[in-house]
Amino acid sequence: MIDLEDELILLPGPVPVVPRILRAISRPMINHRGEKFKEMLERITQALKEIMRTENDVFVLSGSGSCGMEAAISNLIKGDKILAISNGKFGDRFIDIAGRYGDVIPLEYEWGRSIELEDVREVVEREKDLKAIAMVHNETSCGITNPAPQVAAIAREYDLLFVMDGITSIGGMDVRVDEWGVDIAIVGSQKCLGAPPGLCAVAVSERAWDRMVESPPLYMDLRAYRKSAGKGQTPYTPALPLFFALDEALAIVMEEGLDARIRRHMHLASMVRDAIRRWGLELFPRLNEVSSYSNTVTAIKIPEGITVDELRREVKQKGITIAGGQEHLKGKIFRIGTMGNLQEKDVLVVLTVLERVLEARGVV
Amino acid sequence: MIDLEDELILLPGPVPVVPRILRAISRPMINHRGEKFKEMLERITQALKEIMRTENDVFVLSGSGSCGMEAAISNLIKGDKILAISNGKFGDRFIDIAGRYGDVIPLEYEWGRSIELEDVREVVEREKDLKAIAMVHNETSCGITNPAPQVAAIAREYDLLFVMDGITSIGGMDVRVDEWGVDIAIVGSQKCLGAPPGLCAVAVSERAWDRMVESPPLYMDLRAYRKSAGKGQTPYTPALPLFFALDEALAIVMEEGLDARIRRHMHLASMVRDAIRRWGLELFPRLNEVSSYSNTVTAIKIPEGITVDELRREVKQKGITIAGGQEHLKGKIFRIGTMGNLQEKDVLVVLTVLERVLEARGVV
Repeated sequence: MIDLEDELILLPGPVPVVPRILRAISRPMINHRGEKFKEMLERITQALKEIMRTENDVFVLSGSGSCGMEAAISNLIKGDKILAISNGKFGDRFIDIAGRYGDVIPLEYEWGRSIELEDVREVVEREKDLKAIAMVHNETSCGITNPAPQVAAIAREYDLLFVMDGITSIGGMDVRVDEWGVDIAIVGSQKCLGAPPGLCAVAVSERAWDRMVESPPLYMDLRAYRKSAGKGQTPYTPALPLFFALDEALAIVMEEGLDARIRRHMHLASMVRDAIRRWGLELFPRLNEVSSYSNTVTAIKIPEGITVDELRREVKQKGITIAGGQEHLKGKIFRIGTMGNLQEKDVLVVLTVLERVLEARGVV
Repeated sequence: MIDLEDELILLPGPVPVVPRILRAISRPMINHRGEKFKEMLERITQALKEIMRTENDVFVLSGSGSCGMEAAISNLIKGDKILAISNGKFGDRFIDIAGRYGDVIPLEYEWGRSIELEDVREVVEREKDLKAIAMVHNETSCGITNPAPQVAAIAREYDLLFVMDGITSIGGMDVRVDEWGVDIAIVGSQKCLGAPPGLCAVAVSERAWDRMVESPPLYMDLRAYRKSAGKGQTPYTPALPLFFALDEALAIVMEEGLDARIRRHMHLASMVRDAIRRWGLELFPRLNEVSSYSNTVTAIKIPEGITVDELRREVKQKGITIAGGQEHLKGKIFRIGTMGNLQEKDVLVVLTVLERVLEARGVV
């Protein structure tokens, strides 16, 4: 098969990168300690603050979202007790990371099940000396959005720090870092922001600065980032092309307008959910009154009559990549990412192709 | 001034990125868990092994060289005693990182002075329970190449692990990871390999695997990298565009041939050193019988009659960026990087411009 370099990717990140950003990424190198970089970093930081709705300090790290999650935990926890809530793969990652730096109290749910606020409150009441709560806002492994504002409120009530993985929600969903009281929020470049993978950003509150530990990993040392930010630099050599790309990606977000962008994400996810229901298929998450279906990725139970591998392969033959399930959900669900700069036409074509594949198998 | 995006950068990294690589970097995204990525990762890994002259496991991390240095230390040291040798900024960074994970015994020299093998031997004899030695091979902050094979031999003699920062030597100098006995060697993408910044790679020996600690930082957990490498993947989302670029950059290295590439680096650095001597200027490093001037970056004392800022500014007006000194060497030295895919014509023009600037000031 000819490689046309023209694959429609509907993964929950990396997302397709539009031509404007692909042109920006191929700019020649500049001095990363010079004036041009400084201006770009300031522009990027300002845009991220607007998108995260925060006046907290924002830093861009040259690493993936997992690097950002670890930056948050490792700067706040050193032998301290931390509650890590999980109902999916990335919640599990928080538990893993937290266990490397402190005494982690895991609150685990079956993947795709909703987090119960009573459980959170119960653990917080029971555990003494808890320093922080960590939770994933939008759990892409199972297409569920967790109750971040409510858990943030509990953290605030008990004077705990709240770390929120907003990697796949910020820029595509209505995330209010300051209003909710998120002490460290993390976003990834290759999700709702529509840039390529390789960068993440963290927003750090005053409360978080006040309670930071000594000697986190050097590469993630937020104090070093703050010191360099004052000079319009990063402490370690930045991944320049990814900064060029993020700069352009954020310009696109600003042109679209954050509210319009959030509405578009909502609309695209609705299109997928409507089709799923019309076909008689079942969404994977089990909601309660404080959770909701993700507006950036939809997780669907694989119906009888076709396997996930077959479905993905047949869709791929039409030039479209969708995701399967991860870990123990492999073979049980498939996932359609609708984040970043995807347009209605992209979702229409994937739904059309899916319908034909499912029809041909007699599934719908 | 019009921004032509056409600046000749002679920094000790990031280096200019040639058009072939700039085209490769703007490829559309692919599934990072798919067949195409797997093939690319295998190709990259194989090329890096050839360039590092090693059969050890090689992994690419989506982070800068500092991330690679920390990956090496944090996977080997947990409360253990480690000797970190420094005669410059990046040696100091090893001391900083080592102190975050263990009991660091620093062996510090004035920046730019040579490391004395007797001192190393003396510390190794004196200190009990030493687990490892960490050293920078090519110290870009002061343009000196340290005696890596000799220090590796001492490490081997006392059964210590040897961690070598080859970030700015590998791909441009004759580095022999297996022959020397380097347990973890680190290389950066944006130096001699000629790719943009944002990736690093580590080569890990069997001896290193045997003595690895538990629970390093998740983002740098080499066991996780090994596990994923078996599937042709990375444990966390890779910075895809930088992999496309590195893949192309390594193809260029292979086309040039490693030996020819090393000779070219030697030749370009000689051109700079010859000019410096011709002008009566002084190289910064103070050599001994086991150190040498770097063949990838030249550090020069600023002569009377011009400041480093003036020199850099006047050179920049001609569209050329050279480096100053770092930390306490700011204002005392300037540095000319001649690494990556720079050609003789690039070095000729920077020398011509430098000569004119110095002549106009009556310095030469």
